[in-house]
Amino acid sequence: MKLYGYWRSSASYRTRIAMHLKGLAFEYEPVHLVKDGGEQKQAAYRALNPVGLVPTLVDGDLVLNQSLAIIEYLDAQHPKNRLIPEDPKQAAIVRSLALDMAAELQPITNLRVLQYLTGTLRVSDEARLDWIHHWVATTFAAFEQRLEQYAGDYCVGDTVSLADVCLVPQVYNAKRFQVDLSPYPRLMGVYERLQALPAFQQAQPEAQPDAEA
Amino acid sequence: MKLYGYWRSSASYRTRIAMHLKGLAFEYEPVHLVKDGGEQKQAAYRALNPVGLVPTLVDGDLVLNQSLAIIEYLDAQHPKNRLIPEDPKQAAIVRSLALDMAAELQPITNLRVLQYLTGTLRVSDEARLDWIHHWVATTFAAFEQRLEQYAGDYCVGDTVSLADVCLVPQVYNAKRFQVDLSPYPRLMGVYERLQALPAFQQAQPEAQPDAEA
Repeated sequence: MKLYGYWRSSASYRTRIAMHLKGLAFEYEPVHLVKDGGEQKQAAYRALNPVGLVPTLVDGDLVLNQSLAIIEYLDAQHPKNRLIPEDPKQAAIVRSLALDMAAELQPITNLRVLQYLTGTLRVSDEARLDWIHHWVATTFAAFEQRLEQYAGDYCVGDTVSLADVCLVPQVYNAKRFQVDLSPYPRLMGVYERLQALPAFQQAQPEAQPDAEA
Repeated sequence: MKLYGYWRSSASYRTRIAMHLKGLAFEYEPVHLVKDGGEQKQAAYRALNPVGLVPTLVDGDLVLNQSLAIIEYLDAQHPKNRLIPEDPKQAAIVRSLALDMAAELQPITNLRVLQYLTGTLRVSDEARLDWIHHWVATTFAAFEQRLEQYAGDYCVGDTVSLADVCLVPQVYNAKRFQVDLSPYPRLMGVYERLQALPAFQQAQPEAQPDAEA
């Protein structure tokens, strides 16, 4: 399998976490999202992934975009360390928490949106940072409240799930943009426990071959 | 089952489509997203759904947010008219197309983001419309290209799937904001065929009890 990604992309990051949790061997192909206007916008990558976002997984004849679709696929094919519980209600809760992070927060704060804010709307650096802080705070406050109901050591009970896989990259991003994380002690407790796991360490941006100083 | 939603919310819309496709009986509880600053922000609804977005599904003791988590749950519990194919590769493709629409386009153009653009960033009505048109065009152009590979009568072959369920509300939105849809003939062909199906008609915004003129 080959994974096209970018070290600091949170969607790439969450896919790497899932693959490492499952012990899957894969080739990592960096796609530089910034250099030369972004390699993800160039014809070679677009031929593989018309959407022009990372990651893309290639597994034999299957070429797949969208990190959550990739992880669901890997989870079905490689049941070791299941990320979606078999119980339908538990699965539903895990997916809803994962989507809060990956499908509600991440798309609003990703690179292309930030570029539109500053490039097209001429928003100031300060207003851009406020944008990020606003959406992170909105999402994390609700997530903190939801964890009260569901969390054990991890987001849902004591088993690592898709919700955890999606949480960690958003905390990484929040830290990068200096969001105050003190209002979310439960969320940060889960995050710290996850950070101690080898798969999460192997997947972190700074450990990737395309990481920059 | 009880579904909290709003007639014009695309996430509510897609959940209704799925429920009608499966022939599920449910009580519909409108949550007015605009009146009095938005009922979704009020304590009564927040107690049910801390994230403060629609829809929310209540099924016995399960209280579930995130439309895609709800639909995956319903699909597993009620296999009639499966929306996620059983074949893992087909399932992956369906999910990736669904996410292109529901998790990449919709969150950037939903009400709370548009309210932030105009309310906090003081963006003009014209720039707000440009924002919507830009993200719809970006997403639809890639989707049109992907359909070339996958579509039959519907998004993936000749069977209605989660991808179709997610496509229709985004076309509805695009029409509402006068996006030129002529560059997407394949996408619009699929859309027209879906619109002819009873479940899609029953689910449409104007057919809901909380629809406004």
